[in-house]
Amino acid sequence: MSSQAPHSTLLIPGPIEFDDAVLQSMSHYAESHVGPAFVKVFGESLTLLRKLFQTTNPASQPLIIAGSGTLGWDIVSSNLIEKGQDALVLHTGYFGDSFASCLETYGAKATQLKAPIGDRPSLSEIEQALKQKSYKVITITHVDTSTGVLSDIKAVAELVRRVSPETLVVVDGVCSVGCEEIAFDEWDLDVVLTASQKAIGCPPGLSILMLSERAINRFKSRQSPPASYYASLNNWVPIMQNYEALKPSYFATPPTQLVHALHTTLTQITGNVAERFAVHTKVSDRVKAAVAELGLTQLAVKPENQAHAMTAIRLPEGITPPDVLPGLTKRGVIFAAGLHKEIASKYIRFGHMGVSVTDPARNDIDKAIAALKESITEAKKAKGL
Amino acid sequence: MSSQAPHSTLLIPGPIEFDDAVLQSMSHYAESHVGPAFVKVFGESLTLLRKLFQTTNPASQPLIIAGSGTLGWDIVSSNLIEKGQDALVLHTGYFGDSFASCLETYGAKATQLKAPIGDRPSLSEIEQALKQKSYKVITITHVDTSTGVLSDIKAVAELVRRVSPETLVVVDGVCSVGCEEIAFDEWDLDVVLTASQKAIGCPPGLSILMLSERAINRFKSRQSPPASYYASLNNWVPIMQNYEALKPSYFATPPTQLVHALHTTLTQITGNVAERFAVHTKVSDRVKAAVAELGLTQLAVKPENQAHAMTAIRLPEGITPPDVLPGLTKRGVIFAAGLHKEIASKYIRFGHMGVSVTDPARNDIDKAIAALKESITEAKKAKGL
Repeated sequence: MSSQAPHSTLLIPGPIEFDDAVLQSMSHYAESHVGPAFVKVFGESLTLLRKLFQTTNPASQPLIIAGSGTLGWDIVSSNLIEKGQDALVLHTGYFGDSFASCLETYGAKATQLKAPIGDRPSLSEIEQALKQKSYKVITITHVDTSTGVLSDIKAVAELVRRVSPETLVVVDGVCSVGCEEIAFDEWDLDVVLTASQKAIGCPPGLSILMLSERAINRFKSRQSPPASYYASLNNWVPIMQNYEALKPSYFATPPTQLVHALHTTLTQITGNVAERFAVHTKVSDRVKAAVAELGLTQLAVKPENQAHAMTAIRLPEGITPPDVLPGLTKRGVIFAAGLHKEIASKYIRFGHMGVSVTDPARNDIDKAIAALKESITEAKKAKGL
Repeated sequence: MSSQAPHSTLLIPGPIEFDDAVLQSMSHYAESHVGPAFVKVFGESLTLLRKLFQTTNPASQPLIIAGSGTLGWDIVSSNLIEKGQDALVLHTGYFGDSFASCLETYGAKATQLKAPIGDRPSLSEIEQALKQKSYKVITITHVDTSTGVLSDIKAVAELVRRVSPETLVVVDGVCSVGCEEIAFDEWDLDVVLTASQKAIGCPPGLSILMLSERAINRFKSRQSPPASYYASLNNWVPIMQNYEALKPSYFATPPTQLVHALHTTLTQITGNVAERFAVHTKVSDRVKAAVAELGLTQLAVKPENQAHAMTAIRLPEGITPPDVLPGLTKRGVIFAAGLHKEIASKYIRFGHMGVSVTDPARNDIDKAIAALKESITEAKKAKGL
């Protein structure tokens, strides 16, 4: 039994349902951010991130900063690329556009390689693009929360190393870290940026990153100073290195309670990451099969494009999210409306991450599938369809 | 009785001890950041900030953003001043230097007006400086956490309106909002930036600001786009306006649990802000009297320069913070070491904000004063002084 107050089950693509111990960590009593007890919790959290990202290279640099996932874009855009330099943005939905805007804010030139909604740029298209310009970074949204499209970051990274080895491979893993496999060293990634509130299973409020040695070296060889203050690696890297070495250090006050919650969830989920990825895949397959059984399709048509973190479900013709979401809520389940501007009224989003997936005793997924079936039927009936 | 686990009393200048109900709000179950329940809590929190800042001008704009207090400097520096424009930074400690660095990161020219440690620039010095250049902004650290120096923001704002009416008056209120009086409209301030974890009494992780109509208009008349993405007012102002109008809106996921905690503490502290300021003044006077009784002095020598949020206590000759802080910890009280680089080894900092001040049943202040007396005596004895 959960110790939490009764509430509808939150199955949007983040924030997600929380484990009781994680939520209890949020209520940790007041502590000095430079006292030994907290320094240890922060330092260990950084080390646990290495485990989650499967990196053993000591030159990899984890970062935990107060902010939303969006802040990770600023960290990349203001530290790892300079004014006038080129970035290739692989676009699989809303978050490609936004990352491109962020890069341009700091003076980079962003070229977007767009795919039709629900699809992703092909490797041959990416190869062609990489050969046209000397890109300093390529960005890939691992799972685009607006479309549920999964990118093959391993294959893209291999391609980049082959045709444009100096291009930094930057993965937006906001909706993937903690449920989709990421082998940072083995796949030779340079940046994975994420947030606390999705498959990591912590409340929102933390921007989390892993940087490669290549990324750190790129930063060190900048010609111009970092273009942001709060997002400057000059300010943060020494702090993170000190905390991980259990030395107190100050640039800005860390969100102590959120870091406790992060520590709790990372301790839980790094026990067996391979199993965690496997169970997310299995449950995702079950959701997708149920969606197909209802005669519904996904925005991501091809199975290899379908994320395991969430499912973007196309509604039957004539039905819009406001026709279905209240029916789900009535049945104790919260899904999200569409987010991709061009087709927001045509689909809903079902997030399946974290305890809702890993703890079958909660029955969250079966309840959601049943509620979806009933709500769609009800909506069709109401519309005379 | 507190429901919190037994722990040493945290009396550093932030984070501070928390009220039980505030900490319990941190464990709120998962909620959609665009669902009606959370939108209401966020919207009301923004409205409560108007009350805390004593502003009734509907054009004043409150902001609540995931980040530390430092992020507020980026918001000012990337939105309210442009490349090559001048900023006058009144320096009363560590935080003046840092704000100047932030302004310069985004291309402004920062001129610092420095006072000797423990003092603040005089009104005539400020007047003289304002007459030398056309400053777009003047920044004032209301309480510099590194020195415990209080600035007279009301008098500075009056002076600015008289001699340089177009200069935006920017107050760094990180260590003052919630315990030092701030009358935003009456004093004609343009920006007060703060954080959640000091006298507001919420855990760390929120950057909080109030902007005046004049500040918003300055932003709207920028020649260049905002110089940051995560800190851009273009991205955040519409979101805040929507939330306050109880309309869901999305730019980046807000830290839902922290916002709940903020709502709880703002509801408590806005019940009677005048009384809150008065009790902080009274308790601060008591601390300062006790420090004087111990034969000790403060960094801020003149009474009018002394903050009510904290006391920076100069240690006896030959005694350093590591000689005293463990004795305090042993007695269940945590103070902070010095932070101002030039004299860090010569003083300690005693924070007195929030429930430790407003709830006499906790006995935090008396316990701390007694522990200070004993620890100083013990340290002197150990050094043969």
